[in-house]
Amino acid sequence: MTILYKADPERGRQWAAHFAQKAPGVPFRVWPDIGDANAVRYLAAWQPPADVMRTFPNLEVIFSVGAGIDQFDLSGVPPHVAVVRMTEPGIVEGMVEYVTQAVLTIHRDLFDYAAQQRERVWREMPVRAASTRRVGVLGLGMLGTAVLKTLRLFGFDCAGWSRSRHEIDGVECHAGAESLDAFLARTDILVCLLPLTDATRGLIGKHVFETLPKGASFINVGRGPHVNQHDLLDALDSGHLHAAILDVTEPEPLPAGHPFWTHPRVRLTPHIASATRPESAVDVVLDNLRRHRAGERMIGEIDRARGY
Amino acid sequence: MTILYKADPERGRQWAAHFAQKAPGVPFRVWPDIGDANAVRYLAAWQPPADVMRTFPNLEVIFSVGAGIDQFDLSGVPPHVAVVRMTEPGIVEGMVEYVTQAVLTIHRDLFDYAAQQRERVWREMPVRAASTRRVGVLGLGMLGTAVLKTLRLFGFDCAGWSRSRHEIDGVECHAGAESLDAFLARTDILVCLLPLTDATRGLIGKHVFETLPKGASFINVGRGPHVNQHDLLDALDSGHLHAAILDVTEPEPLPAGHPFWTHPRVRLTPHIASATRPESAVDVVLDNLRRHRAGERMIGEIDRARGY
Repeated sequence: MTILYKADPERGRQWAAHFAQKAPGVPFRVWPDIGDANAVRYLAAWQPPADVMRTFPNLEVIFSVGAGIDQFDLSGVPPHVAVVRMTEPGIVEGMVEYVTQAVLTIHRDLFDYAAQQRERVWREMPVRAASTRRVGVLGLGMLGTAVLKTLRLFGFDCAGWSRSRHEIDGVECHAGAESLDAFLARTDILVCLLPLTDATRGLIGKHVFETLPKGASFINVGRGPHVNQHDLLDALDSGHLHAAILDVTEPEPLPAGHPFWTHPRVRLTPHIASATRPESAVDVVLDNLRRHRAGERMIGEIDRARGY
Repeated sequence: MTILYKADPERGRQWAAHFAQKAPGVPFRVWPDIGDANAVRYLAAWQPPADVMRTFPNLEVIFSVGAGIDQFDLSGVPPHVAVVRMTEPGIVEGMVEYVTQAVLTIHRDLFDYAAQQRERVWREMPVRAASTRRVGVLGLGMLGTAVLKTLRLFGFDCAGWSRSRHEIDGVECHAGAESLDAFLARTDILVCLLPLTDATRGLIGKHVFETLPKGASFINVGRGPHVNQHDLLDALDSGHLHAAILDVTEPEPLPAGHPFWTHPRVRLTPHIASATRPESAVDVVLDNLRRHRAGERMIGEIDRARGY
């Protein structure tokens, strides 16, 4: 049996080195050097090749090298092939860092202070206590939960929303479409950490922005297609939204002429909030290989019906 | 006996309202409405008036409304007058927020990403684990200790330096002038939270910047006069220092022509990292008044010989 890696080749070399060290008995290859295609039982990929089942007829598991699996076209992948998202701790650590920085940037008025610096104005604004700042996280999976736990430590007034009911200590948890508006109406800083599915694509548009209180801000660390970007610009330009911090866009890279690049109330980063770290990713994959061979459910294995 | 407030008049009105509510029996006045000068036993001030002892001959305690007392000229204040710095929890909370945001801004390469946004470049840089980023805090008082405890939660490799020996869980603590260089040489992100005294004025100059490793960054939330601003500019312009985040300058406000305003590697804020919150400040002062009358040492009372 072979495990085949198909994503960024530089990272592939790092994965290969860690596999060679941690599991020298496991044949590990980096695309396009596939060897015997019939021996490929495991694929670790950002994007599987077209006709994946025809190319690798004995495939048993597809591991995503990212936190989501929305980038996979699974239409040609039969149900007996397991699909696993990446759960290594570096993804969580990076996301917690990015969102904490983004929430504090808004909370401490740093868009306004940056504008003052450009105009050479030295003028202090009143500091608000974190306990009076209402943060709301859309999506209460591994990442949303970790982010909320850290924001709680700063004393923010925290809420979360997801499709199904969750319980997180000190966090007001909302569930289901019927409670979305109540969640939005109490949220000063909205963070998107939803999975991208047919139910969440385009969810964040005019209605969501209008339901947030005036002066609210938006942080997108989910996926670009969650957002109607035209509606987001309208909400910023009307003054209803204070600012947006976007790590993901549609498409990526964002075209050079897009108004987000130069908008004074938009901060853009190129999808770097969190990245899989090769060493801990290899540990997670090796643990899942062991589970799979023992007939156990793998960590991060997705429910093919729900799509996450 | 009267307690007299002499600082920002708008905040003075808030202090007065909280005193009226929490301690209606305590005569509280806001400068310049001093009433009977001989009745003033307590002064809460950012800057005492000139000739403070001649004006208020029965003065017993001067409370600073800020975290430091370096702004006081204590030359005319006899030793029997106690001097107390502000220790209310809002000061700590604000400082922890500001420094965490600043450290994460540098750690996650947000100066570089801001430059890329200006140039409309979408290019990701490798993410470094927090455990490989060495943060060093100068000053291990109430603020420095609180900041380090929070940075530890993110997994940063933390060290601290102060004049006297401290122990903080998970933090490599250095003490005394002879260990300063070793502390600097292992520090990627240097945070100044020193008290301003004759021993620390101008401490952060050419030698300090050169002893930091190439690519290090500097965050000043202490006082402007800790830093030789000319040396800081040199260190930034030579490329030895990556970036500086400055909440304090010398003088304040920073003059409009100063090169910090427009430097692409300098972020300026107008001394807003942490501010005393009137309500909790009044609680702290009332508790100290009780201690003083009972002959106990007050919380935050400074050692007149050390100066902090």
